[in-house]
Amino acid sequence: MSYSVKKYKKENGESYTLGTTLTIELLKARPELVKAVLLHSKIDGQGAETIKDLCEKRNIYIETNDKAFNVLSQKENCFAIGIFKTELIDIKKDTDHVVLVNPSNSGNLGTIMRSALGFGIKDIAIITPAVDVFDPKTIRSSMGAFFDVRISYFKSFDEYNDYVDKRNYYPFMLKAKFSLANAKFAHPSSLIFGNEASGLPDEFLGIGEPVIIEHTHSIDSLNLPIAVSIALYKYTENKFNGK
Amino acid sequence: MSYSVKKYKKENGESYTLGTTLTIELLKARPELVKAVLLHSKIDGQGAETIKDLCEKRNIYIETNDKAFNVLSQKENCFAIGIFKTELIDIKKDTDHVVLVNPSNSGNLGTIMRSALGFGIKDIAIITPAVDVFDPKTIRSSMGAFFDVRISYFKSFDEYNDYVDKRNYYPFMLKAKFSLANAKFAHPSSLIFGNEASGLPDEFLGIGEPVIIEHTHSIDSLNLPIAVSIALYKYTENKFNGK
Repeated sequence: MSYSVKKYKKENGESYTLGTTLTIELLKARPELVKAVLLHSKIDGQGAETIKDLCEKRNIYIETNDKAFNVLSQKENCFAIGIFKTELIDIKKDTDHVVLVNPSNSGNLGTIMRSALGFGIKDIAIITPAVDVFDPKTIRSSMGAFFDVRISYFKSFDEYNDYVDKRNYYPFMLKAKFSLANAKFAHPSSLIFGNEASGLPDEFLGIGEPVIIEHTHSIDSLNLPIAVSIALYKYTENKFNGK
Repeated sequence: MSYSVKKYKKENGESYTLGTTLTIELLKARPELVKAVLLHSKIDGQGAETIKDLCEKRNIYIETNDKAFNVLSQKENCFAIGIFKTELIDIKKDTDHVVLVNPSNSGNLGTIMRSALGFGIKDIAIITPAVDVFDPKTIRSSMGAFFDVRISYFKSFDEYNDYVDKRNYYPFMLKAKFSLANAKFAHPSSLIFGNEASGLPDEFLGIGEPVIIEHTHSIDSLNLPIAVSIALYKYTENKFNGK
């Protein structure tokens, strides 16, 4: 049998890990989602061994299928593909959250997941319209963090606010008065960030305690994953301090 | 006359700004480098107006040339291209520096420039082997910061050390003992970062005061531009504090 694959489309209900390390992360973290694993005949021995072991343990279908790589991957160094069901785990209501309002770039979204997990924040709320979290580019740029975070979509910030327990809101905005350097955070919190190009709408100036990451006027703004990561670093600074 | 363009190659001595905003940044910051500007017939009125004004002032050749966009740009939303000479401005010897040892990703390099400029650091030293700083991808991801920073290449860290004035070295390494949260920085400094995949070699543990950005064990490492940006934020925190 030869597994038939199609270019990723949201409505198909499945997505792909493109790469050996990423596929191993998927198999370790969320094996229950995996429908099949495809290997390229050029995969190195060690990667193939690890993947075969993991698939055998979990009784996951595996095959060598070079054709599928032409369809799914534009990268030359991709030698393993995991095919998995697009199911999310809902965010918890009482933990620290990163809230992304209308994020529009798949790569950025993955990088944000990696940083969030790095600073111990596992819950990410996304306010639509927003980029599709299952886009293989998001999965790839998350370096596997995707499979260790919880994600929920909301149609509006109000809907998110209704869903979660009482908490402290910190919208990150260029128009905010308080600088990150002076911010005193209470827990649990939601660190809130706007779209890459437009930032948060002005109405967020009236929500919680808006914060600005001060920078020179030589740039318009920081790159979104960088702003999120600096905020997360600062928010968790004392937690990791002297670890 | 129709300007003839070739895909970017380092040895050709010229590179490209792909996009209207980026081309405007080039024309404003480094007009002396510009050889020509090409417009797509679909460029919007305002962008075209601004570019034409800047070119007229500086007597820069400009033409509409849709064909060139097929050769140089893979993005659909690129409607202006600046062609410029690949000349760098050397770093200053007595200022704060970001030092990148063997960086390998063009996009990352541009994002680092944007953050460095954002936190007021204008000097970037690159230790080879390293990605080509003039790659149009680097220029693009810098969002124009490229034209406002100084960059020098060095064949080794020793060569860099010989070139610069006395300063404080802070290599960022996962094996470092001191956490960023507790670091006390002296000025001027060099914040030193290794390659995306391999980090800094162990020998940097014996140079200056190695620093670690603490994070959970759920990720292997932070993305390079994010590590650099968090370090830069922290290094300049008091400078911008309460601004």
